[in-house]
Amino acid sequence: MAEKPTPDATRRSARSRRAIFDAALALVGEVGYPRTTIEGIAARAGVGKQTIYRWWPSKADVLLEAFMDLGEQAARAAGQEPYEIPDTGDLAADLRLVLRATVDELINPAFEVPARALAAEGVVNDQIGAEFVAKLLEPQLQLYVKRLRSAQDRGDVRADVDPRIALELFVSPLAQRWLQRTGPISYDYTDTLVDYALHGIAPR
Amino acid sequence: MAEKPTPDATRRSARSRRAIFDAALALVGEVGYPRTTIEGIAARAGVGKQTIYRWWPSKADVLLEAFMDLGEQAARAAGQEPYEIPDTGDLAADLRLVLRATVDELINPAFEVPARALAAEGVVNDQIGAEFVAKLLEPQLQLYVKRLRSAQDRGDVRADVDPRIALELFVSPLAQRWLQRTGPISYDYTDTLVDYALHGIAPR
Repeated sequence: MAEKPTPDATRRSARSRRAIFDAALALVGEVGYPRTTIEGIAARAGVGKQTIYRWWPSKADVLLEAFMDLGEQAARAAGQEPYEIPDTGDLAADLRLVLRATVDELINPAFEVPARALAAEGVVNDQIGAEFVAKLLEPQLQLYVKRLRSAQDRGDVRADVDPRIALELFVSPLAQRWLQRTGPISYDYTDTLVDYALHGIAPR
Repeated sequence: MAEKPTPDATRRSARSRRAIFDAALALVGEVGYPRTTIEGIAARAGVGKQTIYRWWPSKADVLLEAFMDLGEQAARAAGQEPYEIPDTGDLAADLRLVLRATVDELINPAFEVPARALAAEGVVNDQIGAEFVAKLLEPQLQLYVKRLRSAQDRGDVRADVDPRIALELFVSPLAQRWLQRTGPISYDYTDTLVDYALHGIAPR
């Protein structure tokens, strides 16, 4: 049976955990995924590598959890609940709000540099790509699925629309502009995507 | 003044050019962009490295032209003019056709493996990303802009729609599924994107 940690040990753990996440994100942003090692993260965080191995089986797992933690911090900083998209009954307004917050996150260097390193590795590495999608990206996309289903229940989205595809009309353009730098990212841009996706580009 | 090449020299040049492109694409797919070198491409193509430097100033330029050549070959194999999107007057049908051809290209290993290597480099390397977009991606996206403008002239697309953003509603979802493996790619999928983009996901 595990001993109950003392309050001091819990505080020390939380501090180490944050130091390890910070070190992992900084390192992957500087040297890229392939050259990031558990040893390098441990040295930078000022902990022994056994401390890292006790909590995470691999560098991929440290990094994925570091990103999840970063996303939660960003959501709280934006005054939002992580893992929720607001449901005020006004679908366009709710989508605009969440996409504007995503714009802020994507252009924040603390997120952008390490996220690019991990995303680039996912493009060429099946296994990391699949883990990145399953643990980080898809859970975020499912928040849109939930919000669009609620809109379908209210009659604000066509009943024959597949929400998992529909969300891509506004999420993927922003993702591609960010990943491939195919164009500037702004609130105006994401507001426009929401308008086109909801109402279509053909005349009504 | 340049001497006019003999027919034999022209044939030899075309053969070397194709061998260099094949070697460049194969190599970048195997070892990634950072470890691809002009020397490596020359050795694999069976030409001297001076032959490559005579035509292209850098490995980035060889690779970009190799991809442009591959795209032209794929378009011809699909019975299409490269650099044109059909304009039959039926916008939905024309977009479905081109996106289906893009699906075929994206899942063709001859394209997919080297394209992933170059795309991954573009995610973390500003300069390569910008060159990749300016020379390869944006010219393709401008074909959609042209087609959507023609549709606007006919009244098939709202006059207040920005075609450069509108095209992202069907192009970017396909690009993200391919780049980040967020979902399967099929004709049904791209047909659905065209429907949602034209008519919107909200009820009419």
